[in-house]
Amino acid sequence: MSPTHIWEIDIQFGDCDPAGIVFFPNFLKWMDCSSLAFFMACGVPPWRELVQTRGIVGTPLLEIHTQFKKSATYGERIQVHTTVESWAAKTFTHRHRVMRGDTLLCEGTEVRAFVQKHPDDPNRLQAIPVPEDIKALCS
Amino acid sequence: MSPTHIWEIDIQFGDCDPAGIVFFPNFLKWMDCSSLAFFMACGVPPWRELVQTRGIVGTPLLEIHTQFKKSATYGERIQVHTTVESWAAKTFTHRHRVMRGDTLLCEGTEVRAFVQKHPDDPNRLQAIPVPEDIKALCS
Amino acid sequence: MSPTHIWEIDIQFGDCDPAGIVFFPNFLKWMDCSSLAFFMACGVPPWRELVQTRGIVGTPLLEIHTQFKKSATYGERIQVHTTVESWAAKTFTHRHRVMRGDTLLCEGTEVRAFVQKHPDDPNRLQAIPVPEDIKALCS
Amino acid sequence: MSPTHIWEIDIQFGDCDPAGIVFFPNFLKWMDCSSLAFFMACGVPPWRELVQTRGIVGTPLLEIHTQFKKSATYGERIQVHTTVESWAAKTFTHRHRVMRGDTLLCEGTEVRAFVQKHPDDPNRLQAIPVPEDIKALCS
Repeated sequence: MSPTHIWEIDIQFGDCDPAGIVFFPNFLKWMDCSSLAFFMACGVPPWRELVQTRGIVGTPLLEIHTQFKKSATYGERIQVHTTVESWAAKTFTHRHRVMRGDTLLCEGTEVRAFVQKHPDDPNRLQAIPVPEDIKALCS
Repeated sequence: MSPTHIWEIDIQFGDCDPAGIVFFPNFLKWMDCSSLAFFMACGVPPWRELVQTRGIVGTPLLEIHTQFKKSATYGERIQVHTTVESWAAKTFTHRHRVMRGDTLLCEGTEVRAFVQKHPDDPNRLQAIPVPEDIKALCS
Repeated sequence: MSPTHIWEIDIQFGDCDPAGIVFFPNFLKWMDCSSLAFFMACGVPPWRELVQTRGIVGTPLLEIHTQFKKSATYGERIQVHTTVESWAAKTFTHRHRVMRGDTLLCEGTEVRAFVQKHPDDPNRLQAIPVPEDIKALCS
Repeated sequence: MSPTHIWEIDIQFGDCDPAGIVFFPNFLKWMDCSSLAFFMACGVPPWRELVQTRGIVGTPLLEIHTQFKKSATYGERIQVHTTVESWAAKTFTHRHRVMRGDTLLCEGTEVRAFVQKHPDDPNRLQAIPVPEDIKALCS
């Protein structure tokens, strides 16, 4: 099973909307941050390096499902608890639990794939099988 | 059944990430824009007015489920096709289809509730039953 | 002298902060959008193409000076009036006037340079002289 | 003279644009974060509380002047060094130096004013004299 990595954030004024609470796409953005932090904590180099060495551009989302339980506002410190729930041949599933201490704020599952630039056209991206070495680092 | 409202956007350079494609939380942000545009096209006043007249702050998300099919990049014009798929007592379900012309880029369903400031504490928000007049305007 | 290009935007809920007004960095983001729209209206291809054909990545900012006169909120339609005020050997100066109809909301000058990927290291960017053909298109 | 407060940030993938570097409005956003962090480090309550107790909504920008020296990218840790350079009757001037360790990335001065909701119309904001107690806390 994968380890769980915790990524912390201090919510800012500009993260909040006229209702005074976090504008929800920011929660998704923070899950994305936490996904990258998860891989880097496992020892995977940043995509910026992997694109040079192996042509891997990142792990774009295929699907996301998120439930919002409680709101949050600026001045608060929250944590995203991230793990890989399962690995498939060409995709993997993240679970993110966004917590304010012991309080669950929102919970999401993401299906992602590793992609590289298409060999025939660097403007196109294509999914590749989950690299075994990266999977091993994260398990 | 609800009408479908189409909200259009020209993708900008700053909407895209180092992979050169739309940073995915922006798709969710645009679904949010399209939700508000849907209500305003149906004749519902902006939340800014409703908070004054009826204490209604907006329609925060309870749940979102999105599938990403194709990427998009800056310089492209895309459309969000938004409708209300179903109304429940205290929630409603949006369906958003993000299209580039005839090409489906991503598809999402959102469960939302109308909220107002809590009468005892203006810092708290509470869900209210779907207002019948708003539902009538949007059907 | 350069033409003036007008780029229009409908302000969204998520563009506004807990004070209910546009979160100011969005004005800067819109000036950036309007800068690109200016070049494309003059007939310059998107950076995405120029990076393939001529290695030009874009026109990053060197300096920005902005005065904020009036606030704006969601549901409003505003316009950015953009021109090139002056061309130097390696830089140029944009003037952006953000208007809500006849009302000036904010005004900014930007100094920018054209950059390309460094021939020895694609991870580094370097400024180049203003391309004469692009300057001619925009004058 | 005011103290200098240092606010740190880990740059994220989604903070960067298709050129692979920080999308510049984020630097301005981080200066804004650092402004609020400065006041809170000085012992000023968050605006969310001040709006309840004293009607103070925040310190919107009147003017910003920023020079960009070097780019930065995701995976890097940077610091915003923030101080108040001068206090006037109704405004004050922040200086922000964004550093990556010893390297200056960008430098900005901001002129801001304290604002409250207009007593006659809560939808309008009005500038007020710099509150003496807040100034004292921050000097």
